[in-house]
Amino acid sequence: MPKIVDRQEQRRRIGAALLRLAAEQGLDQVSVRTVAAACGRSAGAVQKYFSTKEDMLVFAAEMAGERIEERMALVDTGLPLRQALHELILTTLPLDEERRAEAAAQLAFAVHAAHHPRLGAIRRQVDDDVKQALVAWLETAACPAPAATADAVIALSDGLALRMLYAPEQHAPLLAALDHALDTLTAVGRQVGGG
Amino acid sequence: MPKIVDRQEQRRRIGAALLRLAAEQGLDQVSVRTVAAACGRSAGAVQKYFSTKEDMLVFAAEMAGERIEERMALVDTGLPLRQALHELILTTLPLDEERRAEAAAQLAFAVHAAHHPRLGAIRRQVDDDVKQALVAWLETAACPAPAATADAVIALSDGLALRMLYAPEQHAPLLAALDHALDTLTAVGRQVGGG
Repeated sequence: MPKIVDRQEQRRRIGAALLRLAAEQGLDQVSVRTVAAACGRSAGAVQKYFSTKEDMLVFAAEMAGERIEERMALVDTGLPLRQALHELILTTLPLDEERRAEAAAQLAFAVHAAHHPRLGAIRRQVDDDVKQALVAWLETAACPAPAATADAVIALSDGLALRMLYAPEQHAPLLAALDHALDTLTAVGRQVGGG
Repeated sequence: MPKIVDRQEQRRRIGAALLRLAAEQGLDQVSVRTVAAACGRSAGAVQKYFSTKEDMLVFAAEMAGERIEERMALVDTGLPLRQALHELILTTLPLDEERRAEAAAQLAFAVHAAHHPRLGAIRRQVDDDVKQALVAWLETAACPAPAATADAVIALSDGLALRMLYAPEQHAPLLAALDHALDTLTAVGRQVGGG
């Protein structure tokens, strides 16, 4: 089915252009016209693959969600809990150009999701998947309150990324804050779990 | 100087309309035209007070920043640390319509700030002020690592608000996550500070 494969590949290229544009200029600069320009096509050519701007946004948000889950799968779960959590969160923080682009797009979608039910549904699904995986790690390490800890880790990670995007001069103190928060969140695990 | 006072009052009314619009529909729906419509004026009448959309955004972002600092000032700092932090964070979470509107506008500005240096400068100033006040609370309670704890509390608060906006069904587990994170962050203070 070369045609179907090609169609999906074309959609992914347009989605990637949308994510780059959102990362570089913000989601308010995203339209069928600007995305088309960013990937060297006409608006009509883009509309062959996405009939509305919202369809295009939803597709790109799904691509962005997949990347989070791919990154999560790359973390060595054989590592001690504290270290595995640290590695995972570092992959989501805007500490270089690639992660900056991803974090900017993710957070723009998250804010947009408050007003767009389809984007909200995608974010909630990604959060649920990440939370479920974190809870499994935390349970394996006998950390108490695994669900609450997982939600706190997700919130901490999003909040740090948000601030790092507009305050790059704060990267060092914010990384220190991450270290401190993970020390305290996983220290409770060691005390109560007896590890 | 009644004219100057009136001018400032008119600017604040337009700023408030912008914040409402950003909260209800998102910052991508904000323009001189839509803000003018939201406060029953012509675009020309709004432009008498703000020459560009960016000037209007910056003014509204400053208003939003003032509200955070006003709220912070209302928390009774005579409360035990854990309780004072909890009360402060609850004022920033979208748990009713008023706080939902404020959180939505704040987070929209935060994401926008990554691409707009003037908005970034306002956010950094507000963060610095909040951090300084939190550090003073934490030091009074003999909490170790006050700077790192303050940054972690700010990140946690932003991250929880972000997710609550698009996942209202998660309010209860996210409040449990807040409780757990504050327990662990301030428990370290009790152990090391000996309080």
